[in-house]
Amino acid sequence: MRETISKPLIIILIMSKATRRKVLRLLTYGLYIITTRLNDQVHAGLISWLSQASFNPPLIMVAIRSESKLYSLINESRVFAVNILSADQKDVASAFFSIKEVKNKMINGYLYEEGEKTGSPILIDLPAWFECRVIGQLDKGDHTVFLAEVVNSGLRKEIDKPLILWDTGWHYGG
Amino acid sequence: MRETISKPLIIILIMSKATRRKVLRLLTYGLYIITTRLNDQVHAGLISWLSQASFNPPLIMVAIRSESKLYSLINESRVFAVNILSADQKDVASAFFSIKEVKNKMINGYLYEEGEKTGSPILIDLPAWFECRVIGQLDKGDHTVFLAEVVNSGLRKEIDKPLILWDTGWHYGG
Repeated sequence: MRETISKPLIIILIMSKATRRKVLRLLTYGLYIITTRLNDQVHAGLISWLSQASFNPPLIMVAIRSESKLYSLINESRVFAVNILSADQKDVASAFFSIKEVKNKMINGYLYEEGEKTGSPILIDLPAWFECRVIGQLDKGDHTVFLAEVVNSGLRKEIDKPLILWDTGWHYGG
Repeated sequence: MRETISKPLIIILIMSKATRRKVLRLLTYGLYIITTRLNDQVHAGLISWLSQASFNPPLIMVAIRSESKLYSLINESRVFAVNILSADQKDVASAFFSIKEVKNKMINGYLYEEGEKTGSPILIDLPAWFECRVIGQLDKGDHTVFLAEVVNSGLRKEIDKPLILWDTGWHYGG
């Protein structure tokens, strides 16, 4: 008896999970390289789960995987920079899937300079960036939500459109 | 003397605000209709500042203008639904710039049914939706960040791509 009841239930649960995955994959994202510095440790990561969260003061919210080194460093440094990729920089994005080398003011071979307000690395090949200071956080899932104030920003090059996740063929969500 | 010092400072402040606006407008967003119900009050709003925030449990984060009726109702009901627009539904999006009429199971003339888990309105003309329960929030800016668990979801129609803000010519951010 137990088996005849549980089989449909399992099927419903699998179907509902598959639906949720499909639906959540319909959310729209950009692609950004987040960087931080804690003393002499510099780190970076490619992320998508980011949005503005207030006009005044200017705040953004970002969800970062809680078991990552990026999370640990930001959680301690309380600062980071967001580097915005242009539409033609998919190759740069893929170079940041993992961080292999930080040396000579380069992360994975990409030069950076230090942000004036936070010391976070600003990648000089990317068209736009902003520096942030964490002012709040929520730790309830496998990613931590950081709420942060935008304290400095710069535009190296005017672009019409940045790199967006839909145009890469990649997914992060579901 | 005072005037000769303050003029450049004012110019720098104006320039830095203009840069920040340009940079923050390079973030990428979708467009969603958020709905909620508090007892017999039904309300909705068009929003962009939303992202997934955890895989397990499935969480999303959304920033909602703190002085809005939508905020007040969600802050009390602790539930909402996110209705995802398809790429060809820009007209539906613009119909939700303001909520003029809720009657006969319609919001601004668009039919809804009640979400099974939260009672939030699910708009039947939109291809996908999910219901959420608030589990945390941050009130530090002119928008409130709600962190919420996805407790139910549905897909009425398979779509390749939803409506994204870049394709509308509209902006929300800066």
